[in-house]
Amino acid sequence: RRSHMAVSYTDPQVSMDLLRAVLQPSFNEDIMAVFRKYQKFFEKAAENVKENVGDDVQTDQLMREACRNVLEHAKQLFPEAEVNRGRSEAAIKRSRPAADEDYS
Amino acid sequence: RRSHMAVSYTDPQVSMDLLRAVLQPSFNEDIMAVFRKYQKFFEKAAENVKENVGDDVQTDQLMREACRNVLEHAKQLFPEAEVNRGRSEAAIKRSRPAADEDYS
Repeated sequence: RRSHMAVSYTDPQVSMDLLRAVLQPSFNEDIMAVFRKYQKFFEKAAENVKENVGDDVQTDQLMREACRNVLEHAKQLFPEAEVNRGRSEAAIKRSRPAADEDYS
Repeated sequence: RRSHMAVSYTDPQVSMDLLRAVLQPSFNEDIMAVFRKYQKFFEKAAENVKENVGDDVQTDQLMREACRNVLEHAKQLFPEAEVNRGRSEAAIKRSRPAADEDYS
């Protein structure tokens, strides 16, 4: 898609994503610290699920999926369109679901 | 969608997502606090982009997109499957969270 990325330093999205990539490791550390606060809840829930459903349940995988879902839902903190009027229009213009957006 | 959700309490994903939904507001608060730490960097970058590219740049929108991208990339902290993908390959295929990143 963005085959011009390597040279297009004036592309606003690319510029911002360069900074994003630089900050990502720090973000990850801080975000991981947040998740550690809640880890025991997810562990307990996954254990309960395993007890109720059966031993074929992969608790680790359940927990990771839950964590990814937390991050996905947290995107609502930064909604795509600011103007209420442009909201539906922006949603239509997107070829991909907004929730999955990733510039790469 | 999950039309069976209302009755399927034994669905592991549903059980976990109920907990996820309960914890989401607390997560959002903590995650927002993390983003506030880095907000000034994104603000500065967005201002620079606006200066370089033009006044039609929506700095708020750029910043929110960057924040959503941070969350998307943070999902790599919780990789989906144990596919032993090579590190380099994972770096290239950035659109999918890869199992190569750890929070250690």
